[in-house]
Order: sequence, then C-alpha cells, then structure tokens
Amino acid sequence: MADPWKECMDHCLEVTKEAGKMIREALQNDISIMQKSSPVDLVTETDQKVEQLIISSIKEKFPTHSFIGEESVAAGATSKLTDNPTWIIDPIDGTTNFVHRFPFVSMSIGFAVKKEIEFGIVYSCQEGKMYTARKGKGSFCNGEPIKVSGQEDITKSLVLTEMGFKKDPEHFKTMMGNIETILTIPVHGIRSPGSAAVNMCLVACGAADAYYHMGIHCWDMAGGAAIIREAGGVIMDISGGPFDLMSRRLIIASSRTIAERISQVIKAFPVGRDDIEG
Amino acid sequence: MADPWKECMDHCLEVTKEAGKMIREALQNDISIMQKSSPVDLVTETDQKVEQLIISSIKEKFPTHSFIGEESVAAGATSKLTDNPTWIIDPIDGTTNFVHRFPFVSMSIGFAVKKEIEFGIVYSCQEGKMYTARKGKGSFCNGEPIKVSGQEDITKSLVLTEMGFKKDPEHFKTMMGNIETILTIPVHGIRSPGSAAVNMCLVACGAADAYYHMGIHCWDMAGGAAIIREAGGVIMDISGGPFDLMSRRLIIASSRTIAERISQVIKAFPVGRDDIEG
Repeated sequence: MADPWKECMDHCLEVTKEAGKMIREALQNDISIMQKSSPVDLVTETDQKVEQLIISSIKEKFPTHSFIGEESVAAGATSKLTDNPTWIIDPIDGTTNFVHRFPFVSMSIGFAVKKEIEFGIVYSCQEGKMYTARKGKGSFCNGEPIKVSGQEDITKSLVLTEMGFKKDPEHFKTMMGNIETILTIPVHGIRSPGSAAVNMCLVACGAADAYYHMGIHCWDMAGGAAIIREAGGVIMDISGGPFDLMSRRLIIASSRTIAERISQVIKAFPVGRDDIEG
Repeated sequence: MADPWKECMDHCLEVTKEAGKMIREALQNDISIMQKSSPVDLVTETDQKVEQLIISSIKEKFPTHSFIGEESVAAGATSKLTDNPTWIIDPIDGTTNFVHRFPFVSMSIGFAVKKEIEFGIVYSCQEGKMYTARKGKGSFCNGEPIKVSGQEDITKSLVLTEMGFKKDPEHFKTMMGNIETILTIPVHGIRSPGSAAVNMCLVACGAADAYYHMGIHCWDMAGGAAIIREAGGVIMDISGGPFDLMSRRLIIASSRTIAERISQVIKAFPVGRDDIEG
C-alpha cells in the first residue's frame, strides 16, 4: 500500500522551506513588535504572515483538512483536535528569540490523523537545520538520520527546560523548585535555549538527554513529537502517564529511565488544556 | 605608529582556525571523558590537546610571552597576570556542551599587555562563527562588524546566565534567588547556552542584552571582554565597580543602565580569585 500521507509531507516540506525563507528575511530587517498579553508573550507581524502563508498554501491543496495554528487560536479559532486530518502549526516557535535574533528560532508543523501524529517537521531557521520524521520511517536532520543519545544515567545527562515569570507565585515557586531539584540530582547541566520545538530536536539528535516543560501548547509539541519518537526517544506526560498533545505538558528523554526519574522528582502545577476553552 | 600587536593577533587567528578544526573533528568522533572534580566539570583529551597545540605554536613565535591556560592551571601552573604580554586561553569553553555536542562550544583567547586586554578572539566551532576584536578597532563576526543591541530598558531585555549545582547550599540558594529576582523584574526571558565566551559574543552581536555570572575564570572572560567592549557594550564587576579579570565574576550588557540594574538587584556569593592560590 502506498504511503497515504506522503503527498502531505512532501507539500509540508515545500511550504516550510518557503516560509522559512520569509522568517530568515525578516530576521535581517527591523522587527515591529506587537505585544499580546505580556512582555514575554511577543508576537510579530511575521508570525501572523508566516502562518497565513502556510495555511493558505495547504488549504488550496487539501481543502477538507483542519488546522490548529498558534496565531489563528490567538485570533479566536478553536484548538479542538478531531479525527479529521489536522495540521498543527507554530509559525515561529521561540518568538522572544526571534525578536532578539537569538540563535534558536523555528517553525513547527505536525500532521495528525485520527488524533495520531503521522509526521512532523521542525525547521530551525538560523541554524539552517531541517528536522523531519514520518511515522515508522525514522528521524532526519537535513536528510541525515538522527537518534537520541541513549543515555540511561540521569547524573550524566544534559537537561533542557525553560524559565519564565509566572503570575501565580505558587506556580513560579514550583517551576524554580523543579530546576533546583534537577540540578541537585545532580545532572551535567541545565540549558534553556528558548524554543520548545528546537529543544525536542536537540534531544532527538543526542545533543541533550531530556527536556521537560509545563505550560506549552500543542503547536509547540506536535512536530517535535514525531521527531523524538522516530529518533528512538521517549515522550510522556509530566505525571509519567501517556503523552497527551492537548495537556500542555511533556517530558521527553533519551531513555525511559531518565523520563521516569524526571516525572518522579518534579512537581506539577495546573496549566489547563488546549482543547478546553478559557 | 604601526600596530605593535598586529602580528600577534594575526598569528592568533591562524592558530584558532587550526585548533578549531581539531575541535570540529573531535565532535565527529567518540569522546573519551575524564572527570575532574565533579560530573559537571568535565575535561576531555581534546581540551588538553588543543591547549598544547595553541601554546606550543605561540611559544615558538613569541618565546618571551606568558600564558594562562585552563588546562595548564588545572595541571598546576600559576594564573597570576603580570605586565608581560600574556595569552589567556580556554581551549574549549563549554566542555559540558562539547561532551554532549550541544551547539555552543567555543575556543577563547585573550591577549593582555600590562594587564590590559589588547585583543580577543572567540571561535564558536559548531556555529562556524569567528568573533574578533582589537582595542580601538571594533568587533567583528566572520569579518562583519557587530554591535550590542543598545537596549536601555531591562524589561525588554533577554538575559543570559548559567545554572549549576553548588556544593555550598547558601551559594546555591543565592544563585537560584538571583534568577528569580531577574525573572520577576520582569525581563523578556533568561537563556542558558552553556558557554561563557559564546554568551559574551551573543550580547556583543545584539542577540541578548545582558549576561551575568559568578564563579567563572579569567580564561572564560579574556577573549570576550575585548569583543564586548569593542562592540559598544558595558563590562563591570558584579558589585557595579570596574571589571576585574581575576575576580571570577562579571556583568556585561548592551547599556550601562541595564548592567547597573543587574548589579543592584543580584546578590553575590564568595567565589575566590584566579590569582590567589587555593
């Protein structure tokens, strides 16, 4: 049987390259910044333009498909995942990095059918790294196969997570406490690159051994979820249970041992769900 | 008058390129890891080989010059800075990154005469970025002039720092408390790339607005100090006083306003000095 979603993935790659060019050009120019809800939640004109380009290009070719896009949701669209073929899009993951021209800025697209991710593409624009993965066919960076480090010993691991200001003092305390907990295991180090999708790819290619995060969105994770799985990595919920794309939280790691250890030691704070309003 | 240290800088660039090739090759191979005092303080064979290559090449050409090198000091050499022309060398800055092949791995060389830094070179090997600066002649990345962002408003800034496990619980608490303090100002974000020399270059080229650190060494800072100054940035001690290469602490920023704000809000913990034994 022919691969039913090959045409979709091929088109995804094309549109990613085109949109990536737009982002790279924008990084050369002055950036007009609009602010969403807070200084750390920046959105740029480019963000919206890139998402429009991606969605309109895909819609033309696959008119019956559904979309969940960061900017569309910000503008009021739903982010309910149905069984229909669905493109889950983050036009610029690492918007703060983008505004500062910090090296990790990526575009992330995941494609789900019957709520299962079929393929994912993450393009790290400034690094010029195109990460791709198709279910059952492995993960690649610029066409070269990649795999996780396979590290089982958390004391020899490099761990990724992100730090941000949280309005709720209890959440902020928990986030900082989790970082302390991980550092005192101890681990080799913690790094914060600032793009969830790039973080997932860094673990997928073995440059880091784990990544955990609470408060991210389905569009940050959908592309990377395919890439980490196909690279031999483990993806799970913060609780240690199965990964849930709409739960706004994840742990990924080079091995189940490390992922489970992280789930055992860190504390969760409530982050809501992407598929429940408000 | 001809530039008295031009020949030194030209030679430095040559040897940096040669040593950089050695690091890039090593990143392709399996890495045999030796551990110094703790799991986060890794040293590799490459680290030592690269330093030997750099020092022997420079010694041959400039036999009267002095050296302070991370690996030589680890092996018992002094790190006292005299008035003699002195090469201050970190063969691999970001050794933990190197071991994990995390993207930021650099070589840093600073050249001081009468305790003043005359030029600095930082080569970010995996990114392929060669940062150079000569006193009074500006800063460059791959030959293109670079400058700091000029940002004056700390609430719009991206701040770099590093997190590590500290044996002394009081120091660890202070380090984590400082991160909380910076995040709650608030700022756009905190990033931890894992290489002090690269951090300094990221601020120098405007990709971040500030970087502070306690517990680093003169060889982490010497090359970057020239680059940040010549890019129009500010470099000072954690106390807000003048930068002291041997003090193991620094703040750098895109503007004096931001550097001073950081010095006012963060707390110091004792880190010793590079030029005092033990």
